[in-house]
Amino acid sequence: MTEIITSLSNPRIKQIRKLRERKERASSGLFFIEGLRIVGDAFDHGSPIESLVCAPELLESEFGLSLVEKARSQGIAVLEVSADVFQSLSTKEGPQGLAAVARQVWSSIDEIQMDSKDLWVALDSVADPGNLGTILRTLDAVDGKGVILLDHCTDPFDPSCMRASMGSIFTMRVVKCTFEEFAGWKQRQPFFLVGTSDRAETDYEATTYPLPLVLLMGSERMGLQSHHVSLCDQMVSLPMRGAMDSLNLAVATGVMLYQIHSYQRKLQS
Amino acid sequence: MTEIITSLSNPRIKQIRKLRERKERASSGLFFIEGLRIVGDAFDHGSPIESLVCAPELLESEFGLSLVEKARSQGIAVLEVSADVFQSLSTKEGPQGLAAVARQVWSSIDEIQMDSKDLWVALDSVADPGNLGTILRTLDAVDGKGVILLDHCTDPFDPSCMRASMGSIFTMRVVKCTFEEFAGWKQRQPFFLVGTSDRAETDYEATTYPLPLVLLMGSERMGLQSHHVSLCDQMVSLPMRGAMDSLNLAVATGVMLYQIHSYQRKLQS
Repeated sequence: MTEIITSLSNPRIKQIRKLRERKERASSGLFFIEGLRIVGDAFDHGSPIESLVCAPELLESEFGLSLVEKARSQGIAVLEVSADVFQSLSTKEGPQGLAAVARQVWSSIDEIQMDSKDLWVALDSVADPGNLGTILRTLDAVDGKGVILLDHCTDPFDPSCMRASMGSIFTMRVVKCTFEEFAGWKQRQPFFLVGTSDRAETDYEATTYPLPLVLLMGSERMGLQSHHVSLCDQMVSLPMRGAMDSLNLAVATGVMLYQIHSYQRKLQS
Repeated sequence: MTEIITSLSNPRIKQIRKLRERKERASSGLFFIEGLRIVGDAFDHGSPIESLVCAPELLESEFGLSLVEKARSQGIAVLEVSADVFQSLSTKEGPQGLAAVARQVWSSIDEIQMDSKDLWVALDSVADPGNLGTILRTLDAVDGKGVILLDHCTDPFDPSCMRASMGSIFTMRVVKCTFEEFAGWKQRQPFFLVGTSDRAETDYEATTYPLPLVLLMGSERMGLQSHHVSLCDQMVSLPMRGAMDSLNLAVATGVMLYQIHSYQRKLQS
């Protein structure tokens, strides 16, 4: 019989609560996910789950209870907590009583071997975790492989990124490296590097997108810098006809990814 | 000589602070914008500014000071406030010392006369103000006219929408109506109504997009309902090949808007 944790200052609960902080996530290599769907996705995609947190008072869903059973049968620790304790961990309205602590999975750039059909996104200094999560979600939809985070990017295991990624954090690979490491890797791997800039002369519809391909996108504030542009095999621009002069980063990436996907579909048909 | 407001509980300041609440925005018909760029955009696009709020201790930008001069020359009230008071109104880190209260501009559906080249987006029950703002920003980029908010949508004058819209809230028209009013308007106006659904049989690249056109997008949670689908002249689906089964609403809308824009460019060339 397991004991239900009722103290908000229980050391394990305090440690989980600290996973809201990037520093704690970085030092522990762990992250916190919350909600039936995303915990289910973590199981489905073989994410290394360290422990489940469940509040029996809140957890009514059959599906949620089946996940608890699954965890127990796999020898994963299940922390039973009171509704109060669960709410102290939760950032959601109407918490469903199920959460998990999982181990972050990162790939090193040197492990990545490009296959002939691979599509990746590289992001320079992306700042908004919601944008990063949304890009992961779109990349999943176009059968991409993952994201390469260059220099000072936001944390893909931030709760806002997780929420926006809708589970694709478990299906996409995540790499972090410096621009220099990325440039060195490009010399050793055969792939086509496409960047976007509103100053590029080639329209995004007037070029080819051979795979394997990496789409390089600049940060929300700065776009691509000259050293990024120099590395690209092709720079393209998205037309902008209105009074404003830029698109949201996740939207621009989405339009580009669907353009690449469309180009590939036409090649195959 | 104007007097600088230093009290956090000054009645005018309290009233401005209340504009964070949707209820207050709805009853007053006003909204609050903050930052040099967006206040500049409001002037550029002729948004009806009721008053400027300026903190002389924080406002160092020449451009910002020129906006204060412009306001004074147009007879717009300028409230000078202390840095503390400004910070109490601000939701930004590193406030720049310039903000404004402006009057919301709504159009009624019956005023909207479709011209031959018009492109609009209609949104059913969109919940996230960031998504709405991002859609306005993309719509501006493809030379769209505005958004029609059906039934229970988030407030376009919410600060998060404003931030995401990057000034396009001043260039795009905003209409709010019920689905029944929208359906009635469709009978009186000549336009092509396109909806998206992952169950639609027609691929988004396998159809035509004649203008004038309204792109109808469902809510984040529910997508389009059967009564929406019945009204559409064409339903299309975006391909999704990954493990996840949907796109972010602003990304899906962005991909569709660029597809429509691309179709129109090819017609014209």
